Amino acid sequence: MPDISDRGKSMPESPIRKLVPYAEAAKARGLEVYHLNIGQPDIESPKIALDKIRNLSDKVIEYSHSAGNESYRRGLADYYHSVGIEVSYEQILVTTAGSEAIIFGLMSCLNPGDEVIIPEPFYTNYNGFATMSGVKVTPITAQIDDGFSLPNIDEFEKAINVRTKAIMLCNPNNPTGYLYSQDELESLRELVIKHDLYLFADEVYREFCYDGKEHFSAMNLKDLDEHVVLIDSVSKRYSMCGARVGTIVSRNKKLMSTVLKYAQARLSPPSFGQIAAEAALATPASYFSEVREEYLIRRDLVVETLNKMEGVFCPNPSGAFYVIARLPIDDCDKFCQWLLEDFSHEGKTVMMAPASGFYATEGLGKNEVRIAYVLNTDSLRLAMEALEVALKEYPGRTN
Amino acid sequence: MPDISDRGKSMPESPIRKLVPYAEAAKARGLEVYHLNIGQPDIESPKIALDKIRNLSDKVIEYSHSAGNESYRRGLADYYHSVGIEVSYEQILVTTAGSEAIIFGLMSCLNPGDEVIIPEPFYTNYNGFATMSGVKVTPITAQIDDGFSLPNIDEFEKAINVRTKAIMLCNPNNPTGYLYSQDELESLRELVIKHDLYLFADEVYREFCYDGKEHFSAMNLKDLDEHVVLIDSVSKRYSMCGARVGTIVSRNKKLMSTVLKYAQARLSPPSFGQIAAEAALATPASYFSEVREEYLIRRDLVVETLNKMEGVFCPNPSGAFYVIARLPIDDCDKFCQWLLEDFSHEGKTVMMAPASGFYATEGLGKNEVRIAYVLNTDSLRLAMEALEVALKEYPGRTN
Repeated sequence: MPDISDRGKSMPESPIRKLVPYAEAAKARGLEVYHLNIGQPDIESPKIALDKIRNLSDKVIEYSHSAGNESYRRGLADYYHSVGIEVSYEQILVTTAGSEAIIFGLMSCLNPGDEVIIPEPFYTNYNGFATMSGVKVTPITAQIDDGFSLPNIDEFEKAINVRTKAIMLCNPNNPTGYLYSQDELESLRELVIKHDLYLFADEVYREFCYDGKEHFSAMNLKDLDEHVVLIDSVSKRYSMCGARVGTIVSRNKKLMSTVLKYAQARLSPPSFGQIAAEAALATPASYFSEVREEYLIRRDLVVETLNKMEGVFCPNPSGAFYVIARLPIDDCDKFCQWLLEDFSHEGKTVMMAPASGFYATEGLGKNEVRIAYVLNTDSLRLAMEALEVALKEYPGRTN
Repeated sequence: MPDISDRGKSMPESPIRKLVPYAEAAKARGLEVYHLNIGQPDIESPKIALDKIRNLSDKVIEYSHSAGNESYRRGLADYYHSVGIEVSYEQILVTTAGSEAIIFGLMSCLNPGDEVIIPEPFYTNYNGFATMSGVKVTPITAQIDDGFSLPNIDEFEKAINVRTKAIMLCNPNNPTGYLYSQDELESLRELVIKHDLYLFADEVYREFCYDGKEHFSAMNLKDLDEHVVLIDSVSKRYSMCGARVGTIVSRNKKLMSTVLKYAQARLSPPSFGQIAAEAALATPASYFSEVREEYLIRRDLVVETLNKMEGVFCPNPSGAFYVIARLPIDDCDKFCQWLLEDFSHEGKTVMMAPASGFYATEGLGKNEVRIAYVLNTDSLRLAMEALEVALKEYPGRTN
């Protein structure tokens, strides 16, 4: 019997999905489980996008252009202009969601054995993409007590070596919700120029900024045209996670022609998803203001409720729809499993993502969880209530 | 300015797409170009699949399960049963088209530096997937005079070394159209067991077999459950290339749980495409018999016409919708470009794929082209007429 590859063995298992069997068992026992564990919003996809799919007149579902339909890319250039990012359609390549954009970007810019610096906690699947491309992730730890702001630039400087080729930043951040400021990005800009690095900017949560703060895109950093690689997706923007449509954007011509070779090998991004995504470009501004308003109410509810619980600390981030909270617990993996296996409050329990999985440094985040506020306020209120009771009952409570 | 990665530089450019600018220029000059260069069929997708999409009632386009919707996988297990392949839905993982199935398969089974043996000529994008996964392709040359049947098993034996981990076979074959017999597969079976290799079977053209011959799946080779990795896709079966829905199938549990880790990293395959593909499972048998009948007429027309041309030889393959023909020309790349740049016959010309791009061995296939018979018979007749005239006028004609 032939063996699995070493690389296959070293592929990380999703720390969130490890809990799925426990959640399924809980449901089988009749419990209601509040899913605060993944970024699957309950928000409706724009009607204009779904209507387009419903009115499809095509008779053959053909390959699209490997870089994505030109009409969609031109529409995307207009969209980027509307959010203050000036790019032409040739600087945009449509990918199978943000995931493929990251894989193509990493493979185009980094060789196996090269390193990418990422502030931790970070989106766990970056680990999987790094393993797939043979790239090493060097984490720089952000602090919950600083609200997960950008770590001191000296920390980055110290981590850079001859194999370092890129810095990756998710802004607004998943899993922390932190919105990086222009000043923070400017400090990275200097570093990137000094060491001639790529700057990967994952900005899929761009539309979700609160407290009157505006998103500053890495694409608007001066003289960084050759360095910045924008990762984007329609998954969160239009609540169309299943469409699997993303983009990789760069003004670096050589990079984009390299990315195109990867895109050609897999022929084309999904046609149905592209049709829906192109139609979604006409989504009225009111859609986003309503969604933002809804998320803001949810964030305030979650953050306020959490901070009122004894021994709990939760920063109040200005972006995305996640928070990371510090809980008075011994081990978040145990706690999250216990919530599903051994706990219930009035027939209900909560599923959250253990934050340990978002740190690359072993041992960090053990008393933290990520909460995605992707449920309506009634559910969130009940979920927070259950969590408060759970923290009192949990045998591994630390204070 | 940061440099592109070496791996990015070594990504192969699609030999077919190199001709696209010439085709576009020809069209701009008012020429009609018959596209025999790519496997984009003109056949309509099943109405039942498109109707399902048109009647979509979902309000949120959510992630699906990382392995694909369970209902679709159960439906696929029934489909495989209907074509004589017995697998359970747990042995099936839905991918973003056959491309992703190959990438996940290669990365799960082979380490960077490992080797996969593939009979040449082969589907060019295998080169891209090999580069992405750092795997070396070892070609074994099939002969046009033998109709591109499986090369002698001794040739495989000689090519096997300590880094060899797999053999990959596309059956029916793209680009040759050759349908491998059960005997040929049995000879590979022995080799695979002897050297404990994986056998990747790309069977996306399963439905397209002619001359009363039946497809024999590698999944039905005895005692090879741990070795065989089936690559499949709805692209050709239902003429839904743009849906980007494929599958990787294996009875090897360890392999499938490894593949799932790759699948989880990219979250899920396309939701719209899966919905269409699941509906397409109910496509009536008459659809396939009609499509087969149409392709058979086209194949006969193309093969007969080609073999009547002076100095031309074209085997008569029993599968897929491609043929490779040997032409009396000096260089197929030059010839195919000349057809688009310098030739026309009654306002028409032909675009074909130079076969050189399907051989990994430098210098082979220089007087061969691949023709995809994906146009109606009227167009094919006119295309063949133009080709015959072209061969007489081409300055690089060799005899």
